Amino acid sequence: MGTPLSPQQVIARKRDGAELTRGEIDAFVAGAADGSWADYQLSALLMAIFLRGMTPRETAALTESMLRSGTVADLSAIRAPKADKHSTGGVGDKVSLHLAPMVAACGVVVPMISGRGLGHTGGTVDKLEAIPGFRTDLSMSRFRAQLEKVGAALIGQTAEIVPADRKLYALRDVTATVESVPLICASILSKKLAEGIDALVLDVKFGRGAFMKEKAGARGLAVALTSVARAMGKRARAVMTAMDEPLGRAVGNGLEVAESVECLRGSGPPDLMEVTYALGEQMLVLAGSARNAAAARVRLERSVSSGDALEKFREVVAAQGGDPRVADDPSVMAAAEMRAPVPSPSDGWVRKVDALGVALAALRLGAGRARAEDGIDPAVGVAGLVKVGQRVAKGQALCLVHANDKGRLGEARAILARAIVVGSRPAKPAPRVGEIIG
Amino acid sequence: MGTPLSPQQVIARKRDGAELTRGEIDAFVAGAADGSWADYQLSALLMAIFLRGMTPRETAALTESMLRSGTVADLSAIRAPKADKHSTGGVGDKVSLHLAPMVAACGVVVPMISGRGLGHTGGTVDKLEAIPGFRTDLSMSRFRAQLEKVGAALIGQTAEIVPADRKLYALRDVTATVESVPLICASILSKKLAEGIDALVLDVKFGRGAFMKEKAGARGLAVALTSVARAMGKRARAVMTAMDEPLGRAVGNGLEVAESVECLRGSGPPDLMEVTYALGEQMLVLAGSARNAAAARVRLERSVSSGDALEKFREVVAAQGGDPRVADDPSVMAAAEMRAPVPSPSDGWVRKVDALGVALAALRLGAGRARAEDGIDPAVGVAGLVKVGQRVAKGQALCLVHANDKGRLGEARAILARAIVVGSRPAKPAPRVGEIIG
Repeated sequence: MGTPLSPQQVIARKRDGAELTRGEIDAFVAGAADGSWADYQLSALLMAIFLRGMTPRETAALTESMLRSGTVADLSAIRAPKADKHSTGGVGDKVSLHLAPMVAACGVVVPMISGRGLGHTGGTVDKLEAIPGFRTDLSMSRFRAQLEKVGAALIGQTAEIVPADRKLYALRDVTATVESVPLICASILSKKLAEGIDALVLDVKFGRGAFMKEKAGARGLAVALTSVARAMGKRARAVMTAMDEPLGRAVGNGLEVAESVECLRGSGPPDLMEVTYALGEQMLVLAGSARNAAAARVRLERSVSSGDALEKFREVVAAQGGDPRVADDPSVMAAAEMRAPVPSPSDGWVRKVDALGVALAALRLGAGRARAEDGIDPAVGVAGLVKVGQRVAKGQALCLVHANDKGRLGEARAILARAIVVGSRPAKPAPRVGEIIG
Repeated sequence: MGTPLSPQQVIARKRDGAELTRGEIDAFVAGAADGSWADYQLSALLMAIFLRGMTPRETAALTESMLRSGTVADLSAIRAPKADKHSTGGVGDKVSLHLAPMVAACGVVVPMISGRGLGHTGGTVDKLEAIPGFRTDLSMSRFRAQLEKVGAALIGQTAEIVPADRKLYALRDVTATVESVPLICASILSKKLAEGIDALVLDVKFGRGAFMKEKAGARGLAVALTSVARAMGKRARAVMTAMDEPLGRAVGNGLEVAESVECLRGSGPPDLMEVTYALGEQMLVLAGSARNAAAARVRLERSVSSGDALEKFREVVAAQGGDPRVADDPSVMAAAEMRAPVPSPSDGWVRKVDALGVALAALRLGAGRARAEDGIDPAVGVAGLVKVGQRVAKGQALCLVHANDKGRLGEARAILARAIVVGSRPAKPAPRVGEIIG
């Protein structure tokens, strides 16, 4: 109302701890999307938001304003319930790849739009692109058509979805304003709600390999995410999961696809399946497709044992131009030239597999990006990782390093030898799945 | 030491409330001066400093780092004590124009580098340039030579002095990070200490026409300014002065020069002389040139009554290329085409002359700049302003508006009619000079 808001006025109000109005938040988001706010004004407000915080009402308004800065998928023609899950990012987290076909095989449509990896966490889009021919850049109309026909589609961000987030995320990365709960909330939820879903399950990770190291901070984020999503009319629930050691036994794009195929074949690592089922149960329950978690679990397990989930995966891969034989033979993907084990220094029990160290080794091998503009190598990574609590003999392989460069192979092995700790007494792995929020 | 600091790391440390090291502060200031930090990183740190504050040690380090980003005048060849004063900015504040020659006439060298006006406060450089021929853009060597010969020089900022401040000040102006005590301190002191002075007296204003409206905030600034200046090895003291009504009777560049000449002739308005003497006393005492304030006062009054100060003013004007006849006949300056009084609406006593309102009227007439790139008109402004407590008759002029545009004249008169309040009962002016800090 009245005169247009100057950036300075909006910044000064948040600086002084005021609750911004919807109009002020709209001005900020429009300014980010259309360039009418200078980058230095956007970053000053981002820092003020970081330090002053935002009320739930402001966070919801920011999320909605960002969502509306771009296209929202209109899936109203699809009658089936639509649900998605989002993870705050971990190491070896390939859950989406097999969870989406499992849930779709149970009759819930999964319209999944994912990001690429940056820093120590991998991205679903990068993993999928390890499958020969797989396209993640579908148009909105192809995305919709595939959802109607197959029940699941896994694509990357498009230019039309939440353009304000691309601008703000890039600025946050270089101005030390990433770790702000309201800014994380708005960034995650605006992109996920642009998918046109009814229900959203959030995998909020805590621990050394997670974005939020402390459980309390992760819990605060889980509460904020679920309450803002609900304030925007969506069913939402968060599952807190530990991220101290990598999820499963493989880290690296193609190696993780192969592990997801194992999951779909009923032979996935227990810790990975525990997280997969916990998230899938909540998706089915929130989508109204199962009475409770136990009933959902039965259906999800059956989707695997029946082969329906694997078949759904094959359909998704084929629909997106990928080689469907990957579901039967992971060797259709590129393999690394070199393989070398990291031997155990002694007899004993695995006490620690440091997720951050393993991620660093994978990054060094070329599996991830240090900077957004870096390319990645789909074949390299770490496979056959031991798990905490496992008994090992001296000289036994703690993991197998897949590399395409001898120097990098050596560096990665050295990093891994420090990241994996073998002790002389038995150790017990920490529980993977924690509290459910919302 | 060690690896170079990334902007993100420095921003994150201040964001989290840490005390920045000298190395981190140097990286920030160098980044501002040489462009190696992006504007959005500078502004994110400015906001973090605004909200987290800075310790006295950090503020001193910031001041010193900014000072060293440019040239410092080397006045070591001048044996006489060197002192300057700085005002935080007010309305009708022409004190520098007559104070510098008064103090120089008492044997203390005054190397004064001043700014231009912006917004509602005027700038000494703009006022001086109302004198025909007066040059404020002297080179450092001419500045030094004039100080040796005349004992006073009044020039403007040069490109070599504190380049980091120009960058940071421009950013602060558009990112709502101006009103931060450590940032104000570093900005003021780095520029003033670049003058090569021994002692600095600060005129810290409070009230409606001041930058700091509240006395408590102004007092905090005064304490910070004097303690940082002392931490940097300078003698420093602050005089708190009220800025609710304009200082003296004139607002506008040429009109203020004329009023300063009156002061030098012994007929300045009492409120203006009260502030002038309070500041001059401290300059003489800090410079070691007078035993105490009372002794300094005697010498300053004598510089006026003897005509020495007026003669010194004439020398300064002549040395800087100005027409020295201005000391005898202000009509050598350009005069405005139109003059019109603002009549008193009733018999009574002047209860209020709102400094901000008078400044707004002067700005409307063209005496100041709304934006840094605006030109100014030296001839326009407001003269003959009544003072709070003065008895007035209905229809008597409350001031005389000098204008070069009929429309603006009308607007200014309307603003002034609201800014000057006449009441039916006697009113007493508030004391001008308050506490002395440091």
